[in-house]
Amino acid sequence: MAAQRQGLVIVHTGNGKGKTTAALGTAFRALGHGYRVLMVQFIKGSWKYGELESAKKFENFKLVPMGRGFVSTDGKVADEDRQAAREALAYAREHMAEYDMVILDEVNYAIKFGLLEEKDVLDFIEQKPMDVHLILTGRDATEQIIERADLVTEMKEIKHPYQKGIKAQKGVEF
Amino acid sequence: MAAQRQGLVIVHTGNGKGKTTAALGTAFRALGHGYRVLMVQFIKGSWKYGELESAKKFENFKLVPMGRGFVSTDGKVADEDRQAAREALAYAREHMAEYDMVILDEVNYAIKFGLLEEKDVLDFIEQKPMDVHLILTGRDATEQIIERADLVTEMKEIKHPYQKGIKAQKGVEF
Repeated sequence: MAAQRQGLVIVHTGNGKGKTTAALGTAFRALGHGYRVLMVQFIKGSWKYGELESAKKFENFKLVPMGRGFVSTDGKVADEDRQAAREALAYAREHMAEYDMVILDEVNYAIKFGLLEEKDVLDFIEQKPMDVHLILTGRDATEQIIERADLVTEMKEIKHPYQKGIKAQKGVEF
Repeated sequence: MAAQRQGLVIVHTGNGKGKTTAALGTAFRALGHGYRVLMVQFIKGSWKYGELESAKKFENFKLVPMGRGFVSTDGKVADEDRQAAREALAYAREHMAEYDMVILDEVNYAIKFGLLEEKDVLDFIEQKPMDVHLILTGRDATEQIIERADLVTEMKEIKHPYQKGIKAQKGVEF
């Protein structure tokens, strides 16, 4: 009997760039093995034209942009935004067994801003089929999520081009 | 007259995972814009089957695995390894103007282990055409390279599956 694959729980957190981008790179690697990859977006705007175009080359790569943008100047979260995040998590829960790798993009951020309950994401991790790799991105991952993860990387900003007055560049940042 | 693109100098450093992977993700995004991307490898073994397979889908993505593996138990570096690293840098220098984005993968590591002179890499950066985006990966980026960069992210290991006794997993780590 072949050894069963052990799906990892991976977290990309921190205030630097590269959290979503490294998840994309991991997807790219997994797709090369013929894996099926699902990437669900919890915050609208985190995906850019470039990756959406490239993703079309891979029939095994499904990107689901379910989250909404949200403005929270007063610390309040709109019900529609909370609803969209919950639906995104429900979608991932319903379909995760069809995939080898599932990426919940910006899910940590969604917890931080009250769009999702931490408990619901912890339950999601518990319900994950053993052989599915799960990647959770977003700054400020909670302690319990880090505790539950197998692999945690903090992407830390050391220097940013905005500090030099350079605008966001096509092909790099979008 | 259209504004000229300002090519960024980007560094991914730190002891965590995701340095090469985030560069791959950035390549993936850039390729979606139709950009031509060159990725040159300075340390053999940093690329895995998965990304090599996926890269084949993109005719604008050229991966050049020029570096060699090296064993340095006594702190010495073989001439052949140094030669291979120099040739990799020379190749990138000769061809960089044909690309929109150039990734020197594990180049920081190559400097650290004496395969390349820091000065040669700093010169390379200076010679870069203005509109080319350049990504340098590898742990222990030197101060001068960080000084010269526009965008620097440290990938910091918070938790690694080896700590739990989990083996490297196909599709994630290779």
